[in-house]
Amino acid sequence: MVGIIMGSFSDWKIMAGVAEILDELDIAYEKEVVSAHRTPQKMFDYALSARRRGLKVIIAGAGGAAHLPGMVASSTTLPVIGVPIKSSNSIDGWDSVLSILQMPTGVPVATVALNGAKNAGILAAEILGVGDEEVAKRLRTYRESLKDLVEEMNEELKKSI
Amino acid sequence: MVGIIMGSFSDWKIMAGVAEILDELDIAYEKEVVSAHRTPQKMFDYALSARRRGLKVIIAGAGGAAHLPGMVASSTTLPVIGVPIKSSNSIDGWDSVLSILQMPTGVPVATVALNGAKNAGILAAEILGVGDEEVAKRLRTYRESLKDLVEEMNEELKKSI
Amino acid sequence: MVGIIMGSFSDWKIMAGVAEILDELDIAYEKEVVSAHRTPQKMFDYALSARRRGLKVIIAGAGGAAHLPGMVASSTTLPVIGVPIKSSNSIDGWDSVLSILQMPTGVPVATVALNGAKNAGILAAEILGVGDEEVAKRLRTYRESLKDLVEEMNEELKKSI
Amino acid sequence: MVGIIMGSFSDWKIMAGVAEILDELDIAYEKEVVSAHRTPQKMFDYALSARRRGLKVIIAGAGGAAHLPGMVASSTTLPVIGVPIKSSNSIDGWDSVLSILQMPTGVPVATVALNGAKNAGILAAEILGVGDEEVAKRLRTYRESLKDLVEEMNEELKKSI
Amino acid sequence: MVGIIMGSFSDWKIMAGVAEILDELDIAYEKEVVSAHRTPQKMFDYALSARRRGLKVIIAGAGGAAHLPGMVASSTTLPVIGVPIKSSNSIDGWDSVLSILQMPTGVPVATVALNGAKNAGILAAEILGVGDEEVAKRLRTYRESLKDLVEEMNEELKKSI
Amino acid sequence: MVGIIMGSFSDWKIMAGVAEILDELDIAYEKEVVSAHRTPQKMFDYALSARRRGLKVIIAGAGGAAHLPGMVASSTTLPVIGVPIKSSNSIDGWDSVLSILQMPTGVPVATVALNGAKNAGILAAEILGVGDEEVAKRLRTYRESLKDLVEEMNEELKKSI
Amino acid sequence: MVGIIMGSFSDWKIMAGVAEILDELDIAYEKEVVSAHRTPQKMFDYALSARRRGLKVIIAGAGGAAHLPGMVASSTTLPVIGVPIKSSNSIDGWDSVLSILQMPTGVPVATVALNGAKNAGILAAEILGVGDEEVAKRLRTYRESLKDLVEEMNEELKKSI
Amino acid sequence: MVGIIMGSFSDWKIMAGVAEILDELDIAYEKEVVSAHRTPQKMFDYALSARRRGLKVIIAGAGGAAHLPGMVASSTTLPVIGVPIKSSNSIDGWDSVLSILQMPTGVPVATVALNGAKNAGILAAEILGVGDEEVAKRLRTYRESLKDLVEEMNEELKKSI
Repeated sequence: MVGIIMGSFSDWKIMAGVAEILDELDIAYEKEVVSAHRTPQKMFDYALSARRRGLKVIIAGAGGAAHLPGMVASSTTLPVIGVPIKSSNSIDGWDSVLSILQMPTGVPVATVALNGAKNAGILAAEILGVGDEEVAKRLRTYRESLKDLVEEMNEELKKSI
Repeated sequence: MVGIIMGSFSDWKIMAGVAEILDELDIAYEKEVVSAHRTPQKMFDYALSARRRGLKVIIAGAGGAAHLPGMVASSTTLPVIGVPIKSSNSIDGWDSVLSILQMPTGVPVATVALNGAKNAGILAAEILGVGDEEVAKRLRTYRESLKDLVEEMNEELKKSI
Repeated sequence: MVGIIMGSFSDWKIMAGVAEILDELDIAYEKEVVSAHRTPQKMFDYALSARRRGLKVIIAGAGGAAHLPGMVASSTTLPVIGVPIKSSNSIDGWDSVLSILQMPTGVPVATVALNGAKNAGILAAEILGVGDEEVAKRLRTYRESLKDLVEEMNEELKKSI
Repeated sequence: MVGIIMGSFSDWKIMAGVAEILDELDIAYEKEVVSAHRTPQKMFDYALSARRRGLKVIIAGAGGAAHLPGMVASSTTLPVIGVPIKSSNSIDGWDSVLSILQMPTGVPVATVALNGAKNAGILAAEILGVGDEEVAKRLRTYRESLKDLVEEMNEELKKSI
Repeated sequence: MVGIIMGSFSDWKIMAGVAEILDELDIAYEKEVVSAHRTPQKMFDYALSARRRGLKVIIAGAGGAAHLPGMVASSTTLPVIGVPIKSSNSIDGWDSVLSILQMPTGVPVATVALNGAKNAGILAAEILGVGDEEVAKRLRTYRESLKDLVEEMNEELKKSI
Repeated sequence: MVGIIMGSFSDWKIMAGVAEILDELDIAYEKEVVSAHRTPQKMFDYALSARRRGLKVIIAGAGGAAHLPGMVASSTTLPVIGVPIKSSNSIDGWDSVLSILQMPTGVPVATVALNGAKNAGILAAEILGVGDEEVAKRLRTYRESLKDLVEEMNEELKKSI
Repeated sequence: MVGIIMGSFSDWKIMAGVAEILDELDIAYEKEVVSAHRTPQKMFDYALSARRRGLKVIIAGAGGAAHLPGMVASSTTLPVIGVPIKSSNSIDGWDSVLSILQMPTGVPVATVALNGAKNAGILAAEILGVGDEEVAKRLRTYRESLKDLVEEMNEELKKSI
Repeated sequence: MVGIIMGSFSDWKIMAGVAEILDELDIAYEKEVVSAHRTPQKMFDYALSARRRGLKVIIAGAGGAAHLPGMVASSTTLPVIGVPIKSSNSIDGWDSVLSILQMPTGVPVATVALNGAKNAGILAAEILGVGDEEVAKRLRTYRESLKDLVEEMNEELKKSI
């Protein structure tokens, strides 16, 4: 089970990408609005109970001074994947990226690209695939499909002038 | 009473500037190492009990993905002043500045300049001076002393070739 | 009484956020166009008379080479909150942020997020709330309402596919 | 087994931090110089054989136009952790960070902070800990030790003037 | 023969500029979608066979963590020209520029401006023109035409008020 | 007469370059420490009396949130040249550059390179040279000397291996 | 007489601001498309003949790798004002700003804000006003008009809710 | 014959890397101090005569507002390679990089990494190797030597603890 959390419902237009790819890879998930700054207690309860509730990976999306991924990571030893979101109150995304990536020694966040929700889902699957050969197999199939995609684009290109 | 907190003892070489100016302005303070990521529970207890324990302003210094000022602000309605620190794990200070400054609507942090500990102390005094004419008077005296400093530097300049 | 100033009427589309939250928190304010570069004398008169006229906090919004907050701060010992505005003549907001934030020792400006007018209003309320339990209470109520907001968004999220 | 790779022996002064923490957490690893640009074939062989050879996580450090983590990720479905290194040919670390973080959809790299080798090791442990309760336990002990560290620093701070 | 490659068909809206200028300068080319991350093997085959297949220059366009130009350069000694593309997943183009430009010693990529596809074509022609007087002559004619363009714009300006 | 001002005596180690080149070009100047934030009244008096006191150009050096050049420009119609200084409290010089350069419409500052004090002096001379053929002649001689400098460096280069 | 030059007719949509303010201040000017890269000889002829042809100030606008202002400055001792333009091929304007501002010692360019064409015109007037009391007077009148503008905006603000 | 030019003798400490690699690859070169801003006429003569004098590639190094590579490119159709130099008057190298890279359509500069002199030499060799099989062979040998270098570093790593 993967936990998907975000600080605001407005982040869902990006974070839906996580759900999309997890559906495609047939991996179960739950989703929740959890705000580091507006509901700190809920956030800690979420993090502290995560492993017990059966979560294996947490994916947290946030923008601006994005504290959610790092603060969740501070209260669990599950892997936490951070998705920097270029929200409306962000300075070109730099604040989102730096406040998720630059965690101090002891508490890492696995950061993916700006708005890289889909890659966060794939990374979660790769983590699950370490111990689950079935998931690993689905990932290999997905990867193969990327090659087909490139060849389809190649066909399109050949037809362009 | 002003509360001075920082994520690591290594921040003290900057944050000592807060204590220095508060001593000069004769304002009481306490100081504590509180880490958002390594001691999240302690941080929340600190923030939640702050007003009750008689604190009026909290000054929090942090570097890198600097979550301490914003997370403390999330659990108190006291004014929180953030000091971005250019620590060794910082990318030229940009991460420290952006992860303190760019707070979401609802939970502000009063951010001062990179390594601007002394100004954080002065700002705390200005806040106390809103309701305390004695402190306001000391601030005016301090401000006057800055003019003298400029004139002393001017003397030095005139003597330079 | 909070003083809201800005360098141009065009800043009002952002700075109206200050008025909005102060109205919500039932805090009195006045508003004025004051330009550091076009009306320097008016700016200084404003700053020098502020405390006498009963202001307790000044909130100044400006963009580009944003000198208004810092220059007002140079002529008063009231707390000055600076709102960096991403105006049309700004380089992605970086100039607005840096020219407000990076004040020299002795004259702090309490800087909030880019376009963070609403947070400037909340910070002003927090400052007033240090000495005014009534305001502090309203802030706590406001904070509680943020939690409800998160739960409403959570409902929305649960209904999304 | 964790695989630690880097583009140059000069990266070892940073990447030794990975080995250090994995030793502390009693997790086995191998280490190898593998260059994306100077030994592309070796890199691909490394990536393609990684799962078969028993690796579960790969940690790749690189600086400048840092292609090693992303290119290894392109040929394996194991989780790949990227450590951006502020090497001598880097522009303040921005190139290292961006060329590791900003991976296209389909091929994620779990990026940690600039020079964040130790956190890469902890993240690898967290990934292994998803399926290995023993490792998870050691991580919890490590996390507890961070709290002690903060209290030790606090003692030091209290003694400082 | 010039080889034009790009990581995605969506890059063609920029990379078509290469074809346009090569057509204008009467220089033969082939074009292909080749992805560093999705088809690494195809990329290496392309690079390794390039000289043998008669290519003289390779122009590679890519955005985000743009590894295609540098990885192709790692497997050929033909000159490789990199076109940083400001794709939708790019942070204002900085990632594209830095991950192409900042190659380590031993494996250069001739980088042109962000979205500078047309200049990549001209640079390829200049390279061919080193040994081909006919191409050099066409380039001189093209350069002369730029002067005429300036004079035409000058006419327009004189007519503007 | 050229007026040289700076916010702090510590800026003199850079601003001495102005005096040096003005001496070389035999142009009179005065120098003064004037701080926008610490001595706002002195700054305005300086600017308002400048033309009357016979100044023709003002050169102002400042670092961090550098308000001195722009605020002086707000109170005089003499040309004001700004020298962004990379002082110790600056974020790599970006704050100094942006807070001097990005002036709003109506009040320009002629900005030179970071730490470009010598060029500020030359620009002042060029401005005086518009109406003073003698100064213009000295500038032409200075420019010729730059060519000799290049040839001297060329000799050195030829002797290097 | 002021000379207005730009690298492309497309820059005129910004540079028309120079003509507008010079018209307002009743200062004569000529305008010309001159490209550093496409018509280098024309550029040098323009610069070398400028003083002889009666120009007193040159205003050059350019974007991207903006070499026009600096290269014109290299061949005249007249003051050259540079206007960084955020053209379509610019990286958020940073390239335009830095390649105009950061001139080496010996050859200054008086740089104004990004797209700051109007301020370039005012700066030119200030330079002419050093030796022409009539122009200086018009500038003072213009400055006074800015105060009226602020008061008009103030009226608007007072009427806003 | 390769032409190596630079704006100042101080650039030689970086640009010597070009000579070093060209010596290693047995490719003839000449070297000269040529300044865009201090000796514009010499620069144009150099560029205009380059092909006639037997040059096949020009490598130009410059820092700050680095106009040399682009301006030389404006007066020749030979390929021009630009080396951005992080000189003392540079803002962290960004100005050097952007003012070389961001050339307008029609006049490309083949830009290499910041301080990437050695790669500029290799790129020149690759360009010559398009039509000179002997040079191409030497490049392949050089590339093979890089693999050996990696294996040597690998030996070192294996011995490290």
